[in-house]
Amino acid sequence: MAKEVAIIGIGCTSFGEFWDRSFRDIFVEAGVSAIEDASVQGEEIDELFVGNMSAGRFVEQEHISSLIADYAGLAHLYIPSTRVEAACASGGLALRMGALAIASGHADIVVAAGVEKMTDVSAQAATDMLTAAADREWEGAVGATFPGLYAMIAQRHIHEYGTTREQLASVAVKNHHNATMNPKAQYQNEITIEAVLRSTMIADPLHILDCSPITDGAAAVVLASAEIARKYTDTPIYIKASAQASDTITVHDRADITTLAATKAAASRAYKMAGMTPEDIDFVEVHDCFTIAEICAIEDLGFFSKGTGGKVTEEGVTAIGSDLPVNPSGGLKACGHPVGATGIKQVVEIAQQLRGEAGRRQVEGEIGMTHNIGGSGGTAVVHILSR
Amino acid sequence: MAKEVAIIGIGCTSFGEFWDRSFRDIFVEAGVSAIEDASVQGEEIDELFVGNMSAGRFVEQEHISSLIADYAGLAHLYIPSTRVEAACASGGLALRMGALAIASGHADIVVAAGVEKMTDVSAQAATDMLTAAADREWEGAVGATFPGLYAMIAQRHIHEYGTTREQLASVAVKNHHNATMNPKAQYQNEITIEAVLRSTMIADPLHILDCSPITDGAAAVVLASAEIARKYTDTPIYIKASAQASDTITVHDRADITTLAATKAAASRAYKMAGMTPEDIDFVEVHDCFTIAEICAIEDLGFFSKGTGGKVTEEGVTAIGSDLPVNPSGGLKACGHPVGATGIKQVVEIAQQLRGEAGRRQVEGEIGMTHNIGGSGGTAVVHILSR
Repeated sequence: MAKEVAIIGIGCTSFGEFWDRSFRDIFVEAGVSAIEDASVQGEEIDELFVGNMSAGRFVEQEHISSLIADYAGLAHLYIPSTRVEAACASGGLALRMGALAIASGHADIVVAAGVEKMTDVSAQAATDMLTAAADREWEGAVGATFPGLYAMIAQRHIHEYGTTREQLASVAVKNHHNATMNPKAQYQNEITIEAVLRSTMIADPLHILDCSPITDGAAAVVLASAEIARKYTDTPIYIKASAQASDTITVHDRADITTLAATKAAASRAYKMAGMTPEDIDFVEVHDCFTIAEICAIEDLGFFSKGTGGKVTEEGVTAIGSDLPVNPSGGLKACGHPVGATGIKQVVEIAQQLRGEAGRRQVEGEIGMTHNIGGSGGTAVVHILSR
Repeated sequence: MAKEVAIIGIGCTSFGEFWDRSFRDIFVEAGVSAIEDASVQGEEIDELFVGNMSAGRFVEQEHISSLIADYAGLAHLYIPSTRVEAACASGGLALRMGALAIASGHADIVVAAGVEKMTDVSAQAATDMLTAAADREWEGAVGATFPGLYAMIAQRHIHEYGTTREQLASVAVKNHHNATMNPKAQYQNEITIEAVLRSTMIADPLHILDCSPITDGAAAVVLASAEIARKYTDTPIYIKASAQASDTITVHDRADITTLAATKAAASRAYKMAGMTPEDIDFVEVHDCFTIAEICAIEDLGFFSKGTGGKVTEEGVTAIGSDLPVNPSGGLKACGHPVGATGIKQVVEIAQQLRGEAGRRQVEGEIGMTHNIGGSGGTAVVHILSR
């Protein structure tokens, strides 16, 4: 970044189905815990950004930027507050906008948050609302859903590279195992390859245990310009790169549906910005909305050659304790996927890991990455973080 | 701004009810016309920002950042594209984010746009969707609508300051007159005080002709860092200040409901940023979603003392050709109010005026201002522009 930016505070709710808690309850919990963690006063906060995909449809509330500033007790300070949205990449965008605001010299301390309350509607309604992240006229209107779109990607990956259903399932098994060590995860239970393959078929070849769940949750980070970060914390986490890319919103317009070109573009910019290569990354949180998505991600981010993502996962190369731990939090699959919150929760996880505060799921290393996708790859956001 | 930013291209659709044109048709028209006006190539565009309140509900499409990059023919460039939202202030936010991106040093050329397609649903449905900009639990759920909330503000203004119904109506009469000279306006007809007072009562004291309409429309501007602006245009328009503020989302939580504290805060920051006072502003586009809103705005922006906004409007002080022309475009009232587009359309109007390209509605001066509100004042965005 033009001006270096650091994370000085982190906060995250538990992820799950919270029928007794409201949209506003959860964002206040995440925001207050990040602000307390950073030991900043309300008066010191210059700007707020919040990632949210669809509160307008899930809870019939737009203009949540004002709502959040208000319910966080900051209305009397009249600070700028902005909602950003790119479907499931909304959280990643919030972090990037916060970093831009500091880099521009207009803010010294920024809160970047993400929130989604998805379980106040039926699962059918939620599926339709999520389909709004695809092209409504060319995908949604003809019956495509996200499991259907990612199933096509998976079928092609199987066809091109011989990826197996067991390899797909091994992503879910690994992420469920990691989530058993994450007290905030939605599903803290082990599963087996056999359980995935026996579970209900959603869109061939994806079974229900290949799919991330519908989740309520919120996460927040406090950002500061690097020069003042140590006034607030002994463990600032530096944003070495913040990159974003867009692509066609539709799957069918892409030259190769097994490659998310937006991921490649965002990653390439991020590596350049940080002066790094994939070899420099010690662990990563990727956007595993479906098991196939994690396989594509670890290939498109440059960690493994195209077509080998399933094989390396099955071999355990991406497990905690191995070469490149992928999704130590449990990922979207097992930690849960409150769509607007996910991009910030990934950053909270990497910051916890870099601080050495990740408990039983602690991994080794100095440099972590987050990878957050909107839709089927119409948006990608990549961040590189370091101690 | 830390780095000065200029507007090098502008584009705007006509505003109206376009039942034969889609959401994507209108944003492409506005975006392409701004890009052509700036004579930039797609390859030169570093980033896109789009303001939109509620495509998720109006046209069941989220993730419009990717959709727009795609339909604008830019998908192969993988440029970052971000939707920002703060209800009816979404357009103003898009401009501010564009300016921050350039100020941060991460972009040299940015497109900032706004779009809303509101007439594909019933008027009742649109009213409910707009109510999502208020507090759903404390305002919307008990039956408050925006005409109702602004009617309360009007009642209090009448009670406190003796503002008359004729003074309210004079805002609409002036703005309709201005719109007769704007070929893109939704309503290009004159109205009279008597017509306003005889029109259907919506929420006492606001008649239907006190209210801005439901509108389809899109607008876009191309921004560049000031140092390169003259490579593209002989008439760059400089952003001297870009300021944003939030307040309580609810009307009932404010100390004085006739004062929009977010407007005062954003204006005060903008004047400070530009090193100016209200006396330096030659003309202004304000957020007249209802007639009372224009009266509050011209008071809260510091142009007239509290309580006198109705009187000065009735006296013609804010007419074209007078001391401080307010809403030369016809404003939200007569030009139309496609909510996410409005903040950018205001900027297009001021840029046209500063370029001397406003035709019969041309006003005099070197410095213009835009004022864009979200909800009942939960968000305010103020820009100061100069030749």
